Amino acid sequence: MKYSFKNDYSEGCHPRILEALVKYNLVQQNGYGLDDYSQNAAKLILQKINNPKAKVHFVSGGTQANLIVISAFLRPHESVVAAETGHIFTNETGAIEATGHKVHGVETADGKLKPDDIQKILNLHTNIPHQVKQKMVYISNSTEVGTIYSKVELQNLYEFCQEKNLYLFLDGARLGHALTAETNDLTLEDIAKYTDAFYLGGTKNGALIGEAIVICNENLQDEFGFHLKQKGAMLAKGRLLGIQFQELLKDDLYFELAKSANQKAMEIKKAFEEKGCSFLSETFTNQIFPILTQNQIGQLSQNFDFYVWKKIDEEKSAVRLITSWATTDSIVADFINEIKNLK
Amino acid sequence: MKYSFKNDYSEGCHPRILEALVKYNLVQQNGYGLDDYSQNAAKLILQKINNPKAKVHFVSGGTQANLIVISAFLRPHESVVAAETGHIFTNETGAIEATGHKVHGVETADGKLKPDDIQKILNLHTNIPHQVKQKMVYISNSTEVGTIYSKVELQNLYEFCQEKNLYLFLDGARLGHALTAETNDLTLEDIAKYTDAFYLGGTKNGALIGEAIVICNENLQDEFGFHLKQKGAMLAKGRLLGIQFQELLKDDLYFELAKSANQKAMEIKKAFEEKGCSFLSETFTNQIFPILTQNQIGQLSQNFDFYVWKKIDEEKSAVRLITSWATTDSIVADFINEIKNLK
Amino acid sequence: MKYSFKNDYSEGCHPRILEALVKYNLVQQNGYGLDDYSQNAAKLILQKINNPKAKVHFVSGGTQANLIVISAFLRPHESVVAAETGHIFTNETGAIEATGHKVHGVETADGKLKPDDIQKILNLHTNIPHQVKQKMVYISNSTEVGTIYSKVELQNLYEFCQEKNLYLFLDGARLGHALTAETNDLTLEDIAKYTDAFYLGGTKNGALIGEAIVICNENLQDEFGFHLKQKGAMLAKGRLLGIQFQELLKDDLYFELAKSANQKAMEIKKAFEEKGCSFLSETFTNQIFPILTQNQIGQLSQNFDFYVWKKIDEEKSAVRLITSWATTDSIVADFINEIKNLK
Amino acid sequence: MKYSFKNDYSEGCHPRILEALVKYNLVQQNGYGLDDYSQNAAKLILQKINNPKAKVHFVSGGTQANLIVISAFLRPHESVVAAETGHIFTNETGAIEATGHKVHGVETADGKLKPDDIQKILNLHTNIPHQVKQKMVYISNSTEVGTIYSKVELQNLYEFCQEKNLYLFLDGARLGHALTAETNDLTLEDIAKYTDAFYLGGTKNGALIGEAIVICNENLQDEFGFHLKQKGAMLAKGRLLGIQFQELLKDDLYFELAKSANQKAMEIKKAFEEKGCSFLSETFTNQIFPILTQNQIGQLSQNFDFYVWKKIDEEKSAVRLITSWATTDSIVADFINEIKNLK
Repeated sequence: MKYSFKNDYSEGCHPRILEALVKYNLVQQNGYGLDDYSQNAAKLILQKINNPKAKVHFVSGGTQANLIVISAFLRPHESVVAAETGHIFTNETGAIEATGHKVHGVETADGKLKPDDIQKILNLHTNIPHQVKQKMVYISNSTEVGTIYSKVELQNLYEFCQEKNLYLFLDGARLGHALTAETNDLTLEDIAKYTDAFYLGGTKNGALIGEAIVICNENLQDEFGFHLKQKGAMLAKGRLLGIQFQELLKDDLYFELAKSANQKAMEIKKAFEEKGCSFLSETFTNQIFPILTQNQIGQLSQNFDFYVWKKIDEEKSAVRLITSWATTDSIVADFINEIKNLK
Repeated sequence: MKYSFKNDYSEGCHPRILEALVKYNLVQQNGYGLDDYSQNAAKLILQKINNPKAKVHFVSGGTQANLIVISAFLRPHESVVAAETGHIFTNETGAIEATGHKVHGVETADGKLKPDDIQKILNLHTNIPHQVKQKMVYISNSTEVGTIYSKVELQNLYEFCQEKNLYLFLDGARLGHALTAETNDLTLEDIAKYTDAFYLGGTKNGALIGEAIVICNENLQDEFGFHLKQKGAMLAKGRLLGIQFQELLKDDLYFELAKSANQKAMEIKKAFEEKGCSFLSETFTNQIFPILTQNQIGQLSQNFDFYVWKKIDEEKSAVRLITSWATTDSIVADFINEIKNLK
Repeated sequence: MKYSFKNDYSEGCHPRILEALVKYNLVQQNGYGLDDYSQNAAKLILQKINNPKAKVHFVSGGTQANLIVISAFLRPHESVVAAETGHIFTNETGAIEATGHKVHGVETADGKLKPDDIQKILNLHTNIPHQVKQKMVYISNSTEVGTIYSKVELQNLYEFCQEKNLYLFLDGARLGHALTAETNDLTLEDIAKYTDAFYLGGTKNGALIGEAIVICNENLQDEFGFHLKQKGAMLAKGRLLGIQFQELLKDDLYFELAKSANQKAMEIKKAFEEKGCSFLSETFTNQIFPILTQNQIGQLSQNFDFYVWKKIDEEKSAVRLITSWATTDSIVADFINEIKNLK
Repeated sequence: MKYSFKNDYSEGCHPRILEALVKYNLVQQNGYGLDDYSQNAAKLILQKINNPKAKVHFVSGGTQANLIVISAFLRPHESVVAAETGHIFTNETGAIEATGHKVHGVETADGKLKPDDIQKILNLHTNIPHQVKQKMVYISNSTEVGTIYSKVELQNLYEFCQEKNLYLFLDGARLGHALTAETNDLTLEDIAKYTDAFYLGGTKNGALIGEAIVICNENLQDEFGFHLKQKGAMLAKGRLLGIQFQELLKDDLYFELAKSANQKAMEIKKAFEEKGCSFLSETFTNQIFPILTQNQIGQLSQNFDFYVWKKIDEEKSAVRLITSWATTDSIVADFINEIKNLK
């Protein structure tokens, strides 16, 4: 069977998580997120962001996190601005609209939103009350195309949002990868400081399931549990989420796993560069998009699985390769070997 | 720390499930429910219900299962009838209404719906199109108060629903307990035969999370995946659900765990009976509701935790005790001992 | 053709309204409620309620008014309490649930809610966050069964709501009839003082269409126009609503029409009383519910149309008779004559 | 006061409608659209479209028509494609999203959708079930920028929709104007033949309020009344809508009014052409978009009111001028005189 670079959720979870699940398995705990592990994991996050007033809630997946946060924060006539590549705009089967809110899609070069992009949307919606009112900006870090925000970019965006009375919400399905990229200059504390809310992704970084929603803006924290329950996100055995995040965060495992995934991707990237390949976008996280000829794609496909992402011209296409915490050195070595042999 | 009889989700999962998670942990699999384990678990269910045309979908929890099934099946003007004790009527923070549908609550003696209960609601809604149209009946087995449906009761209800053009949907959060109760005469095959859809609960019967939605009515199977995704229920690592249900269903583990929970409850029930206690309702599953004096409640509370369920009079209240697959013989023996010593 | 006592919207509108429509027909005005007539009508209402800070919005009908007010005021997890006879509970095809909110129905003797009725619902919903949060109380005056609130009843209810942090919203589809009933002791000013919002019904009191929503609670006034537009309630020619309410309110026409309808109903009621009939409920507005034998119903049905409302026993049923501003003295005389001849 | 060319809903209604309202005012009728006038008006429409199996429903306004049709036809995971200038995409405060459905906006040159525009959206949504399913195409005729569809364009679009299993819904807020434009080659019968549903606008063509929804596709007709009621669109005095459409359609008044509005616009257009002005788009209906210098705009603004629509460059902007059934010859003559005097 071919090895798959299709995504970062092909395996189960990091072995330390399974060990923790075994260890605590028969300890009786309260349900619905009131277990010791969830409460401890929440504390670990508050320490790491250096904000004891933030609130943490654990949910199963990213679409769930997005739809609950957005529907909890917005009033019925309010909308959210996202990049056209943003997960909520195009990859969640209308989950946000299903809660009643319009998502504005903005075309971007690199999956990142800038104040100007948002201002354009604001400029198109001045006919009050005949148009929706923009009230939230949604970004992803790393983005769906593997790019990351710099500190000054995030600061500028947050200041713009503050000025325009917009909430800034950051989808962190791959936040670990963003914060451990070699070009990154943001800390988790910065993320909490320059957003109203964000989530810290577990599913794509070593957990079986789980994302940790962090609500930094105190005005938005109220009664959030009702929304979790109403949307079917409150697990009876919330311990499953708590144990995992406790294990990932009690030391630096969470960041080590992401960093390892990034490094593997960078090694592969380097091999493509040495072969003279160009890339669809310049990324430093665990997603790379080399542009290959049809022949090269055919060669690599014999032993490896990946997505052909975008046709460039008659001869060439960009492919997407994703590494993860589970990608081994030996697989990377095998793959690089095949890259070296590409014609 | 006191031992808790408060619910059947206080522990993690049956050890065999953890073993299976460990065993398959590093095998690469497709995401979003297309993994081998989920597909195999679905096949096992189809065999057990003897209906190869049914469709199976795994989700994280009961509220999620309920809201997705109901919103996928109903058109905007259609409503669902439930008992007032029904989980969707009173314990899901308006999850069904949040998808746009009215839930009619019917007062019942024992948590079970009968054709007459539903007919009363139909009779109150004849002013077309000024009132919602009833299109679904929601029942739970075992019910939220521990009672179960007999075969003839379920058949009658299903025939009534067929005649009135109503879908019958069965919440099986504790279906294992219902089907292994000593007074039960229904099989899993019957459940599939006499409902349009149901779910088989994992969370309360030995799994970490997970409920298996089974859509028996072929007209309702179409495009269900869209609804799962839109409501945030499609796990990237669907393998987590697949592995658990595969393990629970590859032999009779699922039913053995439920039966064990029931037996423990019946042992405790017998001890109360021998002490001369009466009960709020007559149950044969893993929930019992003995009526005790305030003194007796105080005595039992010293070493055990449980809910005081309903005040009967100035002196007495019914309490709720729930056993599970994880309740041990020795705990039951200790508890029975305390019952014997009650004054 | 038989004369109909089936409802109070069988005719068009009071002739003065048609005259006003003709008079202003070709004057150019701004659209969407920014016309002079709507603004003037709003001012007239603020004067009558003696509250210059309230906000007025005109919409087409009662269901529309209800669904917009409720969905604009509530957050997703919040619910509204109503009598089981309340229009939103049973006669609006799930309009409120379609905006995502649960409506709790309370059984009442006379269609009116008392603090105790609401407290019972609150008592059933203490399991935070697993149950919806009650945030609004919906009442109608006059109620759907023709009864009215006294001043002390409304004050008590409002104080209770204030104490429990609940909004009080009054459906005034027949508010004119309530305030001109011979037993009434409330003024329009009281209505505004003891509710967070209410609406003043036009459709059932002489207008072609139109209800005037009045938001008294200043915290709830913000951005209401967005909700009107989103729900399809903002008429391009808002003048149609403005002209009608301006005409109804520039003197006491609105109240005179309602009073006339009430008086006609009371004359008919008296005739039934003199005949020895009893009534389903004691009403002093434009709806009466005499209890008649099948024979009597048959006799009256020969020349008049009305609803048989509720079966009392094998022999007798209550019928519903509604009068309106358009009911003439001569029709009432004819009908009373037939009552006198009843066997 | 300045004469306004800002829109086609600045006046009341055509005098014949007021006469009819007066004439039938005191005739008792059934409520909720079951009055004789509504039923007769529906028949007149069925005759004009030559399709006795279509179903007609009258509602108050365009946003209401759009949101009810779309939410009634689509299942929760289905979406609708519109031009970015489409009313539902940008001018209804998220009314469609508020019912749970995504609206895809397509950039167009002239406000009209072509099969290729839709195919592009389909091509972006092949990742089942992670993306919404396109199920409806929404067009306007005349469009929001005054352009119209030719017969072959509409046929091609309908065939494409049929092939792709998409419903075609036409917003006819200004359908009268489209069908009476000098370049038009479509009939009302064609409109019904080449769409699944459409509406015939009254508000912008001589009525006080009112749009007539026509459902041509028999599979979509079922239980539509429930949706009308639930969304607050079912007027108690449906007669108001019925009388108006009966009057507009019993002869050719509806088309005469639209044609008159178009002719007035064309006279003004010709005056601008003779002055050497160019236009933002080439229109033959009651909206024109001449491009003027700031000085010219200033001159015309002294006695006339209109919207400055789009800045072209530092010196010039396009303005929007809308005529209506109520625009008189003398106003047009005055305005043309001012155009002739423009510098």
